[in-house]
Amino acid sequence: MAVKIGERTIRLENSTGIIASAGIAGKKESEGPLAAHFDKIFNDDTLGEKTWEKAEIRLQTEAVNTVFEKSGFSAKDIDIVLAGDLLDQCISSTYGMRSFGIPFLGQYGACSTMAQALLVGSILVDSCAAEKVLAVTSSHFCSAERQFRLPIEYGGQRNLTAQWTVTGAGAAVIGKGNTACRIEDVTIGKITDMGITDSSDMGAAMAPAAADTISSYLNDTQTLPEDYDIILTGDLGAVGSELLCELLLKEGKDISRVHRDCGKLIFAREYQDVHAGGSGCGCCASVFCSYIMKKIISGELNNILFAATGALMSVKASKQGESIPGIAHLIHLRK
Amino acid sequence: MAVKIGERTIRLENSTGIIASAGIAGKKESEGPLAAHFDKIFNDDTLGEKTWEKAEIRLQTEAVNTVFEKSGFSAKDIDIVLAGDLLDQCISSTYGMRSFGIPFLGQYGACSTMAQALLVGSILVDSCAAEKVLAVTSSHFCSAERQFRLPIEYGGQRNLTAQWTVTGAGAAVIGKGNTACRIEDVTIGKITDMGITDSSDMGAAMAPAAADTISSYLNDTQTLPEDYDIILTGDLGAVGSELLCELLLKEGKDISRVHRDCGKLIFAREYQDVHAGGSGCGCCASVFCSYIMKKIISGELNNILFAATGALMSVKASKQGESIPGIAHLIHLRK
Repeated sequence: MAVKIGERTIRLENSTGIIASAGIAGKKESEGPLAAHFDKIFNDDTLGEKTWEKAEIRLQTEAVNTVFEKSGFSAKDIDIVLAGDLLDQCISSTYGMRSFGIPFLGQYGACSTMAQALLVGSILVDSCAAEKVLAVTSSHFCSAERQFRLPIEYGGQRNLTAQWTVTGAGAAVIGKGNTACRIEDVTIGKITDMGITDSSDMGAAMAPAAADTISSYLNDTQTLPEDYDIILTGDLGAVGSELLCELLLKEGKDISRVHRDCGKLIFAREYQDVHAGGSGCGCCASVFCSYIMKKIISGELNNILFAATGALMSVKASKQGESIPGIAHLIHLRK
Repeated sequence: MAVKIGERTIRLENSTGIIASAGIAGKKESEGPLAAHFDKIFNDDTLGEKTWEKAEIRLQTEAVNTVFEKSGFSAKDIDIVLAGDLLDQCISSTYGMRSFGIPFLGQYGACSTMAQALLVGSILVDSCAAEKVLAVTSSHFCSAERQFRLPIEYGGQRNLTAQWTVTGAGAAVIGKGNTACRIEDVTIGKITDMGITDSSDMGAAMAPAAADTISSYLNDTQTLPEDYDIILTGDLGAVGSELLCELLLKEGKDISRVHRDCGKLIFAREYQDVHAGGSGCGCCASVFCSYIMKKIISGELNNILFAATGALMSVKASKQGESIPGIAHLIHLRK
């Protein structure tokens, strides 16, 4: 049974946690600092498919197959799959999960999807609505570029605040007993819109949402940033990360020493030409489900806040003059 | 605490249910048989907005405002809002819910979204993760036509199996105590794909998913169609409804006497030129949250299965030769 803590935080009390996870990635990601940590790498970003969308669909299927291989689970062991992505009508998830025959609940959280799926999944397991839930998401540089920005063939120059959509996916199995870490608390994000309209500066659009959720969590639980080994954000990149630290510092919360961002971790900005860093649903999904989970299993990280951010806009909304609302969902993990 | 019944059904045991609801609709819907039942009608389908997308965004905001007016609740009474829609990146929901400041979990279930949001919301409330959850969805004929088919200005001729996207929205507050009806059981849909590729025949694409979920529910609970006052589907329309009855009859389950479909109820096909009937997330949302809920409150309906279907495709997926997967989520309501 869940218990509300403070204003917005939900505490889970049934030892629900992550049993297994897998993070997979593409070629550019395999040339970055986390290369050795991904569970599978695809040097051909088409994954042998005819379109970029089909390649991204395949990424989700492969992420699930990889976590099944690692854990020994199969589709019949899973009660519910929670998946989502940024392609129109979430087709990476619907087509990616189609062959598994697992009851499916589509999630829409933009780049916060991994945290949202883990958050909802942990409540479903904790409440006994499911024994095991699978959380999955993905992104692909080429499908994202042509949907949200320009076809890659165009070779358009990128703004320095722009981020590079990660080609990658992550999948995690949530359950009870024999978990690598427990999901102790979750905080659901509020839609936060500070009027940013530059779709080449997503970090700035999402940072206020991350600040709001992390601040709420720390207030609700009466804890301090230094109580955690790491406060991990999803894909704020260099610009958004700096803003997040600034915003929280104004409230007297200095997270700078423990804050890390998956968008900064996944690429070496000094030689990979990714400008402000990585982004996309697959960014924190691939990093969290491989690199971070391995650090948890090894005991290097024991007390973790993971807050993934999403920009809740569309091309059509931007063309109609709308600003970019952000959201950030948080989970608190403990070894 | 939830309990698993049979293979896939989840039984809720904490008297969780629907406290209040509101269904709103546009002009064409106000000329149909359910005109008197909607809680609010907009004779101007622009809702005073400059674009069809902004009009649909406004529909979601209006649905929430209407359920708040009817129930006396306000945003501060709601712990979580679950919302989704069919526009790219679910912008009706993200922009429609932006002003309320309620923790937000985006749902993607295509036209099954109302049932999905009620289903997930009821588990969240039942598990005490939330006291009150708001479930919201919408569709708009003009935003759907130009996104999925042709701009309405083109005046293209419609196939006879085609359905007419409802301009409408629904919102419901889920909680415990003082409920109009309880949500006793829920069954999460599986992605079902029978290879249908005609996007003018969504009913046919979705009927197998509805058959699968309803059949699973009846098997899991060892009940018969005649045990229910109504088995309500979302937007199968005339073609899909006939197929659903046929598919279930093959399994020895005759639902024909108790089956009703929101897509058939909302329009008078004989004089409204809607071909196979209504569709869209707003179809079953507006019908269920107004007409059906009023029949439950009056005592005319006491034992209800509500299974909303969704077609999980996109224009891009169809152009790349993909078939149309369907899904159906079910909730069992009892007065």
